[in-house]
Amino acid sequence: MVDELPSMTLKAIGIVRSATKQPTGQDGREIVSDIVIDSSLTEALDGLDGFSHIIVLYWMHQAMSGEVPLKVRPMGRQGIPLVGLFSTRSPNRPNPIGKATVKLLERQGNILRVEGLDAIDGTPVIDIKPYIPGYDSVADTKVPLWITSR
Amino acid sequence: MVDELPSMTLKAIGIVRSATKQPTGQDGREIVSDIVIDSSLTEALDGLDGFSHIIVLYWMHQAMSGEVPLKVRPMGRQGIPLVGLFSTRSPNRPNPIGKATVKLLERQGNILRVEGLDAIDGTPVIDIKPYIPGYDSVADTKVPLWITSR
Repeated sequence: MVDELPSMTLKAIGIVRSATKQPTGQDGREIVSDIVIDSSLTEALDGLDGFSHIIVLYWMHQAMSGEVPLKVRPMGRQGIPLVGLFSTRSPNRPNPIGKATVKLLERQGNILRVEGLDAIDGTPVIDIKPYIPGYDSVADTKVPLWITSR
Repeated sequence: MVDELPSMTLKAIGIVRSATKQPTGQDGREIVSDIVIDSSLTEALDGLDGFSHIIVLYWMHQAMSGEVPLKVRPMGRQGIPLVGLFSTRSPNRPNPIGKATVKLLERQGNILRVEGLDAIDGTPVIDIKPYIPGYDSVADTKVPLWITSR
């Protein structure tokens, strides 16, 4: 099956500007950072400030990619058994794409000021989407114990 | 700034198998489909069935990409003013990546059976992540009127 799977090319639409220069291992909930979008795409941001929250897809450029370990220890915690990579949010993934839901504090032209983006300075941004409750959220969920015991 | 923005290469990790062969324009909430993951990555799915819901990132291969219209009419509805592309979930984006939160019905080996995936048969899948309430969801949000009047 491997041979059938296609490759695609992404082009960054912008870059994260943040005081955070290295991964912190935290979820970055209180970090305020700027997303500087390619100025040729400024118009495509119109209306975004009608939303309180946005979804940011970004390329974790310092992570491993391609052939990565298939089993990992979530958040590096020794007390947790190894689980499959896709059961975790580990940055080391075949395609190292991060997805964060962040608060949109302000839009000025091609710059989005956001709160809660767990991405270091210089991270390429590949998409911005509005956060739509009900479509992006689930009311009734189940997660494993190792998630709830964080 | 355009010159500074990097390009990246993605490799699909799997393919959607669905009875839906063409885009429906619906949100696909009740569609049941299979995600067939590259069998060399099967082990990376271990533990995923501890989660009731997963996030699927996929490549909308029939959408426009690259240079796309920057202003669009959400869901093609004539009564809604043009808004910036990034304020919508239009598939026609510089990087046509879709993000869906779906119910994981069953995992069997390298096959994930899911409910609610708005992606047609043959869609390349580029990442699978667990849905983590509180990280992926927001309790208190604001959206524009055109979203709530859908």
